[in-house]
Amino acid sequence: MQVPLATARAVATDVLVGAGASAQHAEQQAAVLVDAEARRVSSHGLLRLPRLVRRIANDVADPLACGRHDWVSPSYLTVDGQRGLGPPVALHALDAVITAADRHGVAAVSITNNNHLGMLGYYARVVARRGLACLAMTTSEPLVHPWGGSRAMVGTNPLAIGVPAEPQPLVLDMATSMISMGRVHDHARRGVPLEPGWALDAEGSPTTDATAAMHGSLAPFGGPKGYALGLALGAIVSFVTGSAPDVDVRGTLDDDQPSGKGDLFVVVKGVQHPVTAFLDQIRATPPTDPERPVTVPGDGGEARARDAASAGIDVDEGLWSELLALRLSPAPTAGAASRGSEESCRL
Amino acid sequence: MQVPLATARAVATDVLVGAGASAQHAEQQAAVLVDAEARRVSSHGLLRLPRLVRRIANDVADPLACGRHDWVSPSYLTVDGQRGLGPPVALHALDAVITAADRHGVAAVSITNNNHLGMLGYYARVVARRGLACLAMTTSEPLVHPWGGSRAMVGTNPLAIGVPAEPQPLVLDMATSMISMGRVHDHARRGVPLEPGWALDAEGSPTTDATAAMHGSLAPFGGPKGYALGLALGAIVSFVTGSAPDVDVRGTLDDDQPSGKGDLFVVVKGVQHPVTAFLDQIRATPPTDPERPVTVPGDGGEARARDAASAGIDVDEGLWSELLALRLSPAPTAGAASRGSEESCRL
Repeated sequence: MQVPLATARAVATDVLVGAGASAQHAEQQAAVLVDAEARRVSSHGLLRLPRLVRRIANDVADPLACGRHDWVSPSYLTVDGQRGLGPPVALHALDAVITAADRHGVAAVSITNNNHLGMLGYYARVVARRGLACLAMTTSEPLVHPWGGSRAMVGTNPLAIGVPAEPQPLVLDMATSMISMGRVHDHARRGVPLEPGWALDAEGSPTTDATAAMHGSLAPFGGPKGYALGLALGAIVSFVTGSAPDVDVRGTLDDDQPSGKGDLFVVVKGVQHPVTAFLDQIRATPPTDPERPVTVPGDGGEARARDAASAGIDVDEGLWSELLALRLSPAPTAGAASRGSEESCRL
Repeated sequence: MQVPLATARAVATDVLVGAGASAQHAEQQAAVLVDAEARRVSSHGLLRLPRLVRRIANDVADPLACGRHDWVSPSYLTVDGQRGLGPPVALHALDAVITAADRHGVAAVSITNNNHLGMLGYYARVVARRGLACLAMTTSEPLVHPWGGSRAMVGTNPLAIGVPAEPQPLVLDMATSMISMGRVHDHARRGVPLEPGWALDAEGSPTTDATAAMHGSLAPFGGPKGYALGLALGAIVSFVTGSAPDVDVRGTLDDDQPSGKGDLFVVVKGVQHPVTAFLDQIRATPPTDPERPVTVPGDGGEARARDAASAGIDVDEGLWSELLALRLSPAPTAGAASRGSEESCRL
């Protein structure tokens, strides 16, 4: 069913406030989920909300926490996320780091003990819209098999890069797996086979059966290079933040495990803006198929987001009913006693 | 022919000193080229040396320059490479930035007006061996077609990541093209066809003819994701350093054009070392082919470097004769008058 963006955001915000979030945190979390829907990355959209409410009820997510900030130097911030919701903790930290990078040329933040960020490109876009470049990394549960390996050992470890440009920033946002586990689940639900080379089953044999792949592992994208990239991104995040190695990460796909992942953002100032003209040259380069012009990372998502602003987003009816029900009867909030006392984070 | 590592380094050093380099700069440049040979990345090895000598003669490379350092803040260094040789300028800058990152948690350096770095992983390894993590980026001439495009518009824009681990650091070093242009030239020389999907000819049509591909474009690795990654890496380097966009980069594949590329290094301190154990788990994971155990980025290169330390490196006879001749009769050094006066950079 089609739902206007504002309605989706309002319902998601209400659900989160009902679960104990401050208005500010609820709005930030809702905006990230609904933006994913608008860009048709529904694996990072509203389907994550019921799980988040259960995580709050199970006291592995604290919807009031802002993250405890510890400045190692004027350019380096470490954050204990205090089990907070991913977006408020990350946005609060990024706001501080953007100011620091503007002043000192570069600044970085490493974050642990924080819940799922949602779409990583969201944060790269936030930084790029404020005129700075961003490298964003985060780890995940092991879902990807090493190149030549038969078991899931490596996270889907995405990389996002944001670079200021007009009319919109260049935003790369890519997982290092061939496809997302969300897409495997979607194929399983619809009874559609996977393409060869996308996944292995639990025994490590190639499979096109989506249900078998759900219990197996995803292929890295781009063969050995994609495997090496995903492994290296996970390793640098784990080394810098002190978070769990991929194989031990929990807490972004379950209801009750503490989040063991790490997040790392590097923000850098630029000295000139030659990027816009270059991206326009790329868009104007002769395509091999005249019907399909060349695009730049972020162009497709931006066009979809514009469409969604007028046409709304397409939400699964069952999910929408679940959200409406959650709004009416908030889940019990078992962990309220141990939560942060601040009503909102000063930005 | 097999050449001992020490001989190769000594000859390369002599050639560079003959061309006007200080002993320190000649040794640094020679070490990077010979290390590439030892790891069998010969596209970044000794074949680059005669061109470097011609670039010195043509005054687009200054073998005495150390780079002018300008600290924006205690964590951010910008360097005008003063047309220096890539390795001495980058190593001099990295040495300063490693000290800064050790003290302040993070530090970055952006470099312009610097010659070719050689193998980018070399620098990630230098940093990781000193106990810090490194993200390294550099741009190149446009050799890669955008996904869906028919002309070379994007650099091979490599990414290197170094993470401390035992017995050796994890070092990712990958170009974002499917193959290197060096490999295309090698196939052309040997009359061996390319694999389908590796390259387009000058008209933008798929080709397996290596000679046609030399005048065409390389495919990005991993389809649209690899294209997006390469473009984003080039854009962030160009934005941060103010270097030319990929399409206008010159100076790493020719004898007489000033280098227009940019280099960007980010160095970050770690808080713990969970990486070694995790990499060992990866190496021990069941392979799909029992004969081919799973490896970690850098393992193969490290094993080859160990082999080369005893067996030497395999150098093309024609190239070796050329180097021996260059050693005996140094090229004229037209640009000596305008060169830096320092004999070596203080490290």
